[in-house]
Amino acid sequence: MDVLTRLAAIEDIKQLKARYFRGADTKDKGLFRSVFAEDATADYRGSENNPRTGSSIDHNQSPTQSLIVGADEITDAVFRALAPLVTVHHGCMPEITILDDHRASGIWPMVDRIQPAYAASFTEGIGWGHYHETYEKIGGEWKIKTLRLTRLRVEVR
Amino acid sequence: MDVLTRLAAIEDIKQLKARYFRGADTKDKGLFRSVFAEDATADYRGSENNPRTGSSIDHNQSPTQSLIVGADEITDAVFRALAPLVTVHHGCMPEITILDDHRASGIWPMVDRIQPAYAASFTEGIGWGHYHETYEKIGGEWKIKTLRLTRLRVEVR
Amino acid sequence: MDVLTRLAAIEDIKQLKARYFRGADTKDKGLFRSVFAEDATADYRGSENNPRTGSSIDHNQSPTQSLIVGADEITDAVFRALAPLVTVHHGCMPEITILDDHRASGIWPMVDRIQPAYAASFTEGIGWGHYHETYEKIGGEWKIKTLRLTRLRVEVR
Repeated sequence: MDVLTRLAAIEDIKQLKARYFRGADTKDKGLFRSVFAEDATADYRGSENNPRTGSSIDHNQSPTQSLIVGADEITDAVFRALAPLVTVHHGCMPEITILDDHRASGIWPMVDRIQPAYAASFTEGIGWGHYHETYEKIGGEWKIKTLRLTRLRVEVR
Repeated sequence: MDVLTRLAAIEDIKQLKARYFRGADTKDKGLFRSVFAEDATADYRGSENNPRTGSSIDHNQSPTQSLIVGADEITDAVFRALAPLVTVHHGCMPEITILDDHRASGIWPMVDRIQPAYAASFTEGIGWGHYHETYEKIGGEWKIKTLRLTRLRVEVR
Repeated sequence: MDVLTRLAAIEDIKQLKARYFRGADTKDKGLFRSVFAEDATADYRGSENNPRTGSSIDHNQSPTQSLIVGADEITDAVFRALAPLVTVHHGCMPEITILDDHRASGIWPMVDRIQPAYAASFTEGIGWGHYHETYEKIGGEWKIKTLRLTRLRVEVR
């Protein structure tokens, strides 16, 4: 692949992930849905647990119980969890590798902050970690094909 | 527009916004001033208020009271507010759209943290949200033409 | 230098620094080591001190006592300090300047969070600031040649 095509694909995938974050945090369900391939999978399992202490963000309807398959299913599960929460998700400088014209992978450092909008058993949950993702170019547009979230640290206050 | 010109413009605008942040946080007034078009506007209205609870960062001489017009006026208003504060502004992966050779727009996820350098009615203010901006290429250099800050969440401690 | 070569070098350096952060936080010593030129220098002096108040993150075997020379020496010093810590290092949008085919410089806004894995005199240290770096292209790969960390603010809790 030539350098220009590779750089354009990297920038496209950066903006794809930026829409994922903005869709979640501004509660724009259509925007969030649009970033996924139809057969995408999302693996948030364990992401509510602090890897060192085991302390956990205990909130209802968490999408962290099982592997989620399908763009609609991911969107529904995430938005059920988001409904009672104010969230901020930030992604930092990624390592994106373009494998060929239609496939890519990426690792994203991240932090997310969730805050219950109503009385709850916690006042804030903060998680730091990495998204490990693959991407597919479908109909001229890059989409998230697989997503897995790992944690460095989780704090519940 | 060809792909290479578009990617170069996106990188230029990323570095433009990086100078905005660094100018503010290192108190480099000339650097901060240099990122704006002469007739730039900045709209920080409401950015001191938590969108959900209405709690507010109450500090003097806030630039959040009205739309600010002009690069000098923006710089003066922001630096009056910054003077008694230690600040950290971080911007994350942006969605930048190049509209033509001279116009662009961008959305930036952000967090800012302000801390009074002297005794005050609060110890820290943290705001999370998005910058919504437009850019203009003037004399070969991209500049911020309009800036508007919206919030997801504001905490005052 | 042509625009395409410059943009490719900037992306390479962004991913180089992403590996620096990921190597440190996932405790991948080989990955961390690989980002440095053999004769690299790292200057973390003063980075444990709050520039305004002088309060300090007091942890053993800090790599902040002197200028460190050599890729192995930097890696050993940093990993001695990291061993008893859970860390999260995030870098934001950088200002990277490509000077010629083999030399570049960059300024990176950053935040790092350190947390003792065992009982200690503090529960968390957070530092915000900038990395000031130079890069060299050696054997076709960009490496960190010099690194210096300055602080806007340090909090110890």
